[in-house]
Amino acid sequence: MPHINLPDGYPGIRSLFMYSPATAYPLNLLVQTLLHDPATSTLTPGERELIAAYTSNLNNCKYCAATHGAIARHQLGKDSKIVQEVLSNPDTAPISSKLKALLKIASKVQQDGKKVGAAEIDMAKKEGATDKEIHDTVLITAAFCMYNRYVDGLATWAPEDPSVYDQIGRQRASEGYLTAPFMVKAGL
Amino acid sequence: MPHINLPDGYPGIRSLFMYSPATAYPLNLLVQTLLHDPATSTLTPGERELIAAYTSNLNNCKYCAATHGAIARHQLGKDSKIVQEVLSNPDTAPISSKLKALLKIASKVQQDGKKVGAAEIDMAKKEGATDKEIHDTVLITAAFCMYNRYVDGLATWAPEDPSVYDQIGRQRASEGYLTAPFMVKAGL
Repeated sequence: MPHINLPDGYPGIRSLFMYSPATAYPLNLLVQTLLHDPATSTLTPGERELIAAYTSNLNNCKYCAATHGAIARHQLGKDSKIVQEVLSNPDTAPISSKLKALLKIASKVQQDGKKVGAAEIDMAKKEGATDKEIHDTVLITAAFCMYNRYVDGLATWAPEDPSVYDQIGRQRASEGYLTAPFMVKAGL
Repeated sequence: MPHINLPDGYPGIRSLFMYSPATAYPLNLLVQTLLHDPATSTLTPGERELIAAYTSNLNNCKYCAATHGAIARHQLGKDSKIVQEVLSNPDTAPISSKLKALLKIASKVQQDGKKVGAAEIDMAKKEGATDKEIHDTVLITAAFCMYNRYVDGLATWAPEDPSVYDQIGRQRASEGYLTAPFMVKAGL
């Protein structure tokens, strides 16, 4: 049961967006810029959603890991097993060496920004990551350390039914984050 | 030295706002809504800045703790010693029992959202905190777990000179976050 009185019938962060429209807009604008907008990063939306799902899984945030895992699956191709392999062990997952090196940086940022060292940065650059891709990885990971704490810190509802996440994944992968019903309903 | 090539002469998160204008706008809109806008919370801007400084101090983020500590000092009255006392030990600081209870929630969220339990929530409600104030505390703390990781994860420059933070504190306390030079320069 949530720690505060949230609107019924909305899972995870959606219940918080309905509860607090004033913060819903900047939070959705940020995630749209970080994950979905093709102009803001040379990492693909699928790669960026993988970083979000990986971070959420490290934080054991069930709702966010399942949601962004589903969005990544739809971005990468519906039958992709990449998401589960990345969450289990990025080092053996069928992804590029550059993305593996960026996920190593993400694993440090998830613990504490100061844990990112020259070794992780040098490896990412050696594998072809640009400064901007390192920047984007750090900020996506940092942002999900926020979204995960927001969702879990208020004990929001995480549905058990996988089809709920698949439906959210299909919608967000195609539409992005600014067309969600709670955004429209809140007049945002 | 920063991990990526950032513009010279800008400390902390300011160098990142200059580097990445596309993310600067949602990040500043979020912090304006969370900390400065008087209409979005029944916690005062000073109380909200104290939560931000307290979280940043728990995360050992020197730039953010010094900046939001300085903003809080200017919000609460320039000679206030409250900030240092809150960072050292909220339980003995000269703040309300409600704010002490909210900082207890913040200390849990800083570690992991799932560490917030019924005990902390019940105590905050007993001390008069509303659902919205609990919500705002959780989201401010979660947001600073993001800003702190962004600043430290890219190893930005934290000035040693206390007068730098005092100047930032005076400006942001009076103007908020949407009039900053880097926002104007970036055309935001």
